[in-house]
Amino acid sequence: MLGACYYPEHWPEDVWATDARRMREAGLKVIRIAEFGWARMETAPGIFHWDWLDKAIETLAAEGLEIVLGTPTAAPPRWLIDLHPEILPVDRDGNVRKFGSRRHYTVVSPKLHEATRRIVTAMAERYGAHPSVIGWQVDNEFGCDDTVFAWGDVDRAHFQSWLKAKYGTPEELNRAWGNEFWSMQVTRFEEVELPAGQVCAINRATQIDYMRCRSDAFMDYFKLQADIIRAHSPGRFVTHNAMGYSHTFDHFEMGRMMDLASWDSYPLGRMESLLVSEEERIRWARTGHPDISGLQHDHYRAVGQGRFWIMEQQPGPVNWAKWNAIPEAGMIRLWTWEALAHGAEAVVYFRWRQCPFAQEQMHSGLLRPDSEMSPGGREAAIVAGELDALGSLPETTKAPVALVFDYSAAWVLQFEPQGHDYDIRMLLIRWYEAFRKLGVDVDIVPAGQSLDGYKAVIVPVLPIVSEAAHAAFATAAAPVLFGPRAGSKTGNFAIPDSLPPGPLLQGLMPLKVAEVESMRPGLEEKVTGVVQGTVRRWRENIETDMQVLARFSTGAPALVANGSHHYLAGWPEPDLLEDLARMLLAKAGISPLDLPEHVRLRRRGNLVFAFNYGPQSWTVPVSEDALLLGTRELAAYDVACWRE
Amino acid sequence: MLGACYYPEHWPEDVWATDARRMREAGLKVIRIAEFGWARMETAPGIFHWDWLDKAIETLAAEGLEIVLGTPTAAPPRWLIDLHPEILPVDRDGNVRKFGSRRHYTVVSPKLHEATRRIVTAMAERYGAHPSVIGWQVDNEFGCDDTVFAWGDVDRAHFQSWLKAKYGTPEELNRAWGNEFWSMQVTRFEEVELPAGQVCAINRATQIDYMRCRSDAFMDYFKLQADIIRAHSPGRFVTHNAMGYSHTFDHFEMGRMMDLASWDSYPLGRMESLLVSEEERIRWARTGHPDISGLQHDHYRAVGQGRFWIMEQQPGPVNWAKWNAIPEAGMIRLWTWEALAHGAEAVVYFRWRQCPFAQEQMHSGLLRPDSEMSPGGREAAIVAGELDALGSLPETTKAPVALVFDYSAAWVLQFEPQGHDYDIRMLLIRWYEAFRKLGVDVDIVPAGQSLDGYKAVIVPVLPIVSEAAHAAFATAAAPVLFGPRAGSKTGNFAIPDSLPPGPLLQGLMPLKVAEVESMRPGLEEKVTGVVQGTVRRWRENIETDMQVLARFSTGAPALVANGSHHYLAGWPEPDLLEDLARMLLAKAGISPLDLPEHVRLRRRGNLVFAFNYGPQSWTVPVSEDALLLGTRELAAYDVACWRE
Amino acid sequence: MLGACYYPEHWPEDVWATDARRMREAGLKVIRIAEFGWARMETAPGIFHWDWLDKAIETLAAEGLEIVLGTPTAAPPRWLIDLHPEILPVDRDGNVRKFGSRRHYTVVSPKLHEATRRIVTAMAERYGAHPSVIGWQVDNEFGCDDTVFAWGDVDRAHFQSWLKAKYGTPEELNRAWGNEFWSMQVTRFEEVELPAGQVCAINRATQIDYMRCRSDAFMDYFKLQADIIRAHSPGRFVTHNAMGYSHTFDHFEMGRMMDLASWDSYPLGRMESLLVSEEERIRWARTGHPDISGLQHDHYRAVGQGRFWIMEQQPGPVNWAKWNAIPEAGMIRLWTWEALAHGAEAVVYFRWRQCPFAQEQMHSGLLRPDSEMSPGGREAAIVAGELDALGSLPETTKAPVALVFDYSAAWVLQFEPQGHDYDIRMLLIRWYEAFRKLGVDVDIVPAGQSLDGYKAVIVPVLPIVSEAAHAAFATAAAPVLFGPRAGSKTGNFAIPDSLPPGPLLQGLMPLKVAEVESMRPGLEEKVTGVVQGTVRRWRENIETDMQVLARFSTGAPALVANGSHHYLAGWPEPDLLEDLARMLLAKAGISPLDLPEHVRLRRRGNLVFAFNYGPQSWTVPVSEDALLLGTRELAAYDVACWRE
Repeated sequence: MLGACYYPEHWPEDVWATDARRMREAGLKVIRIAEFGWARMETAPGIFHWDWLDKAIETLAAEGLEIVLGTPTAAPPRWLIDLHPEILPVDRDGNVRKFGSRRHYTVVSPKLHEATRRIVTAMAERYGAHPSVIGWQVDNEFGCDDTVFAWGDVDRAHFQSWLKAKYGTPEELNRAWGNEFWSMQVTRFEEVELPAGQVCAINRATQIDYMRCRSDAFMDYFKLQADIIRAHSPGRFVTHNAMGYSHTFDHFEMGRMMDLASWDSYPLGRMESLLVSEEERIRWARTGHPDISGLQHDHYRAVGQGRFWIMEQQPGPVNWAKWNAIPEAGMIRLWTWEALAHGAEAVVYFRWRQCPFAQEQMHSGLLRPDSEMSPGGREAAIVAGELDALGSLPETTKAPVALVFDYSAAWVLQFEPQGHDYDIRMLLIRWYEAFRKLGVDVDIVPAGQSLDGYKAVIVPVLPIVSEAAHAAFATAAAPVLFGPRAGSKTGNFAIPDSLPPGPLLQGLMPLKVAEVESMRPGLEEKVTGVVQGTVRRWRENIETDMQVLARFSTGAPALVANGSHHYLAGWPEPDLLEDLARMLLAKAGISPLDLPEHVRLRRRGNLVFAFNYGPQSWTVPVSEDALLLGTRELAAYDVACWRE
Repeated sequence: MLGACYYPEHWPEDVWATDARRMREAGLKVIRIAEFGWARMETAPGIFHWDWLDKAIETLAAEGLEIVLGTPTAAPPRWLIDLHPEILPVDRDGNVRKFGSRRHYTVVSPKLHEATRRIVTAMAERYGAHPSVIGWQVDNEFGCDDTVFAWGDVDRAHFQSWLKAKYGTPEELNRAWGNEFWSMQVTRFEEVELPAGQVCAINRATQIDYMRCRSDAFMDYFKLQADIIRAHSPGRFVTHNAMGYSHTFDHFEMGRMMDLASWDSYPLGRMESLLVSEEERIRWARTGHPDISGLQHDHYRAVGQGRFWIMEQQPGPVNWAKWNAIPEAGMIRLWTWEALAHGAEAVVYFRWRQCPFAQEQMHSGLLRPDSEMSPGGREAAIVAGELDALGSLPETTKAPVALVFDYSAAWVLQFEPQGHDYDIRMLLIRWYEAFRKLGVDVDIVPAGQSLDGYKAVIVPVLPIVSEAAHAAFATAAAPVLFGPRAGSKTGNFAIPDSLPPGPLLQGLMPLKVAEVESMRPGLEEKVTGVVQGTVRRWRENIETDMQVLARFSTGAPALVANGSHHYLAGWPEPDLLEDLARMLLAKAGISPLDLPEHVRLRRRGNLVFAFNYGPQSWTVPVSEDALLLGTRELAAYDVACWRE
Repeated sequence: MLGACYYPEHWPEDVWATDARRMREAGLKVIRIAEFGWARMETAPGIFHWDWLDKAIETLAAEGLEIVLGTPTAAPPRWLIDLHPEILPVDRDGNVRKFGSRRHYTVVSPKLHEATRRIVTAMAERYGAHPSVIGWQVDNEFGCDDTVFAWGDVDRAHFQSWLKAKYGTPEELNRAWGNEFWSMQVTRFEEVELPAGQVCAINRATQIDYMRCRSDAFMDYFKLQADIIRAHSPGRFVTHNAMGYSHTFDHFEMGRMMDLASWDSYPLGRMESLLVSEEERIRWARTGHPDISGLQHDHYRAVGQGRFWIMEQQPGPVNWAKWNAIPEAGMIRLWTWEALAHGAEAVVYFRWRQCPFAQEQMHSGLLRPDSEMSPGGREAAIVAGELDALGSLPETTKAPVALVFDYSAAWVLQFEPQGHDYDIRMLLIRWYEAFRKLGVDVDIVPAGQSLDGYKAVIVPVLPIVSEAAHAAFATAAAPVLFGPRAGSKTGNFAIPDSLPPGPLLQGLMPLKVAEVESMRPGLEEKVTGVVQGTVRRWRENIETDMQVLARFSTGAPALVANGSHHYLAGWPEPDLLEDLARMLLAKAGISPLDLPEHVRLRRRGNLVFAFNYGPQSWTVPVSEDALLLGTRELAAYDVACWRE
């Protein structure tokens, strides 16, 4: 189903009813409200004002719209900051980050927790049982604008407590971190500094523990709110709207506390920061790269253990990227269908009407500021009609390929890239793209989860291998391919005694990584053997008696195998990735399709969807009359659907 | 007339008389002194030392030189800072900007005002009536080195007072700014933070109000000094030496308090930061782009309501740019004549003698540190002779083309560029250049000023349209062309209810801007119709029944007209700019000249000047004997002049 | 001889004996220990723990290994910081740089000195007379990670005292610095601010004095430790391990307090920051540029007045560069022999075994973390064998060419580059390379030291010319060539009254530099005459009656001579550098060799070494049987040696 984000507090009350009617007429079913309204809800501790929200909810409900309520904790009001200035986060340089935008809190502040408990309890008590309220969104975009971390006294004390709980004694902390290295030993937990502002390199063990500590703190904060909501709002889902391509806390772990996951999809806005090739940035400037959303849809389907929403969908040009293009005509519809094809239960556009004032006035909506439908609004209404015609969509089924990911991989690479351009987001997109260009669906699977039922498994990078992850790899029936750096770190961020890939993976693949190299731009190695192609950015010298499937031009092993377990000793460029994907698909008995660069397919149950990201048309491989959506000659930026 | 900046305090007293004699012999008529001499003038509160300045003034006067006195407030002495450390400005991160260079004050400091009143009164009383003193320069280069803004307690309190005076109540402030947006409402003015250091995007309404507040504070500070000077120094002009290409306060508004405007012209130094094309930076490295000074001459002529000086003219290589070239031989003379051709009443070189010590020792002067004439000094002396020969120059007359500008346009684009490369300085230079390459003079006209008498009017960008500006556009007899983003904001930095270009301009041009796009490098749209060319960086989808004069390749309107009012829906590249300029000139009945890229003309009354910025010669379009300056085959870097 | 850096505290005691045995077996003779072990040595003021170090020393000594002891002051322990937080350095923004890595002290802290005296005395008393201890390293890498400077209260007070000692009165300070310039005069030394955080440009005289002050402070700190050590450890050398290409204190001056110099050689790690050409970065990515180490070997031989060690030698990939390549097979051996050929007495690899935990876990060692020999370890063992076979190496003799350098040159160019790319490290490498590519050895000679015995002298840049330097130039028998900016500043960082090159050099070369230009990329001037080639980045207009040997295309003098003294008026590109080198060699009667780009020669006494940095072989110019090392067809990355 489709929906929109709505801020009644931004508009005169006398337009609410018209808005609600037009939402219904456009085919929207669900409206998210209230997420930034704290200052209007509570004007002093415990002094609540619900009349406006009562009325807004009634107005929407009167049109049969369902409601997702956002808790407003991403925007603590001025009076709360005045009462407890220690809620404000402190930046790495020790400066307080000021009131005047949003997310101005450090998540570990006890005063924040106290105020959160009060407002969320009040909201949940008042609206939890409202028949139109179907779900809750906790806070908004945890981590946006570098707000996972904070560096003040409260944060240091919290970290010290966390460490004490983890390590028990300073001696154990010193040992785990290797503090002997530069006389960094502490004798009391109170002596541990936060990892910022040191003279030179910081102990990576400290860095990853601080990341874990902050990730845990967001688990606590989510749970604090979710528990209150669930106590007062039975039967409603609880979720959080995550940002895609963000690795600053463990979304899988939070997902296990959610009824369903959701994420905010801005395919154009994210382009400038993600893809390094200037050609791709230009080519996909008005569509987004064809895999940029799909990868995240599949990722958050995993976060939600099969269930996810798009809680914010880009409806047109936005305001926050370096450049903000107008999507090609058709793209709002295409993105919407793509999310649905990947299993989204709902696509909620951000936002209903473009807001003419304040920070996001250049962010489009389904309506323009003059209340006319925007092009995106018209496309959304088309999808709504198509959805009604199509009836309920089938369940998503397991994809043939599993891409294994763990947040700790992002953390290790952040703190120790070793090569300047070892960007995990690039790596994931490229691996995903390699299969998607061959017409194959991919599931993202958290490391440690069973790999049963998959036909091929790729592990692009997994420095820290847990027992559970090892068990899943060991028992996988499918071929498993590990990228370089697998098992290269212990849980304490150290090199394993037996060298990478560490004792667990060495049980599956008897090899040692003897030496690694990060390669500057301009350096590359050619790979030949059962796969051909190019390695850039990273290569390893490995020692092994395993079967060598491909070698570097130096003769050193590039790809080795022990039964179904494969190890790749370099960062694969697209030519090598394609060969690797074809090799795995061949082993899995899957026939690849040779799709053009601008076309993607995705199955949902027995439905197949095709998406045309390019200006050229594409001939759909079924007859015209089999099509539920689209035409055989699939037009530019158009969508097709047929039953398989 | 010509002059120089002189710092007697930098030299032994025994060379002053020789310097003064040599100034006179070089043909200089006016000397600016005293602007950084506060520490020598006043050594404790109210303890003044005038003997050295008395003597310096007498020495200059004895050679018949006229004197402009600079008030020394750009360099508060150490003892004043020790007494009142709160005078020091605080940077965005909360760090105090230290004593040890210049401009180390926040302009709103009451203690600064008190000390300013004391020193300026003392100076004005002592020298205001001196017969050789002809004018005063208040302070030096307001805003240089990011000194318009400051971020300390005194600045926050001042801003809060300013807001209270503007808005009256917090409720009205909240409404005007749209503080509802993210629960940013305040209940007391004391709760308003300065717009820096927030967690993420800051309300644009706050930003532009802080800009206005600081601009107003500089008005107050100028007026404080000007009022004192005028009370004690009747008949002398009061001015301020502005930096060109600086938009951090409203120079037009300050200009209305001045008897004449002045600005500091450094054609080479400014090149690196202004023009994005690397080819242009190389091509004009030793001359400056041919329009870089001209545009500012015309701008400050508007600031001074017809009267302006060059208070500092680059005399050779400088010290502060990324690279500091030696101007081509002839350029000091060329720049000087160019300023005069644009109407300058005086060109004052910075500085008389290169100072061998301290911060600017690599900045050349008319004399080298060894007191020999520099090449620039020799060229200045040539101009002095030519000026004497030519007699007094005629009055400047109105140009055929008006380029309308308002400082609020720079502020809107600074806080909301929406596209990373939407640089207003580039935009203004390109528009100006388009006409100048066709031999046409251009006046800069403040928005809101009458456009009577102009034959064509261009408005490159004007997001906020005042009633007065609208009235001028409505009553203009000439064709008026608005660039994109015209009328796109209300005075409170919001999108107009009726969409851009807003109700006032929509009265002249019935159109709505439905959607806008900033275009990343690599994207462009072709325009065809009565004009042809390329749009980059920005394009708009407009809805209108107006006449479509040109369209994008998509068919969307690119240039529309309603009678004499034209609207352009994209950022024009030079090819399109040339066509637009030719179209407007044709409508205005003006025949363009096809000048080579390196030649510019400029009329002053009935005199025509030609400037050759290139290494190739150019044949002047009059006979040899008509020439008052130069030769028919105008040599590289040479100047010609004839009577029209 | 060869050695390794060893950290017994990082490993279980039960492996120490094995490690020591394997060190001996690998041919190592000397082991550096203890440099970061303060926290283990002293756990509270005066509470020492020597048992572990006693045992480590005995274990090494038992295998006949000699020991260099590092004082541990680069890593003050936590308890010391807790007792005296003022030891921590403060950064330019006023933030304290925190405990948790290393070098977290400001060198002028009295409490640091007190604690240093205690720990160094205790160490020296305990181990000073141990028969296996042959030398001491004071601290570690002074200045690493921007730790020469600090900006706190203690630093300001120290600077003020230093200034008082230098200038006596505020009046004299004001005069020397030219504080009159912007009313910067002080009346008490307590009013002087540190040169950071000012509003705009800082007085260069202040900047260079603060550099001198900090340099002096490191002299004091070195001397504090060296005096204690010498009192208790007679007959042992005292040194400091410097970073190459670092100019933040005067290494020559410190060298005069040392028994021998040492430096840390990381040929690959330094590449990314040093050479601007992307082609060179790629070409030499796995070897280092052929002159990058040689220049520093020769430099530190000068620092040590003929004696130097490599105290840390890169043994394989490192962890701290932007990209970290694996050296080509053979390079560890090549680098080692190269250091020896340039006169190193010992090459000590950093480190014995790669440490699997903490900050440097990706830094290779002679052993891998699993205690297997790394490729670098194997190459080191080969060199050890070759060294034994070759017997003791002859003394280094004087090179034919002297390259004169002074640290003040780096300081002047840092504070006043005037052109953005005037990088002294590039300039020195290019001059050095020009001679080295012609097969000629080069000595680095501190300005002011006698030039007797040299056949050619080059002075790439020397803005401040001392009396002693002048005397050496005046009495040199060889041709001397000065690059631009020679003598361009007085000791107080001012332009000389007589213009550059100042009165002293003008006595040797009657010329005046009338004007200078820094040239942006894209500008160049061709030089023709007795030398040909290109000038970029910088050119000067000089006035002189000296003989003009070459001119710019403008006709202006580019190279002039007065007898044996030559002055070059621009930054020479490699083509011009080659011609200049050939010209000087011709005057010196030296026949150049035309080596390929990838081959270098170096003489040590009567031994000639050849180094092949490229993948192609090279035919050695002696017969096979004359070779002590290598083969006539010198293989890629191989070394040859023969007796001359």
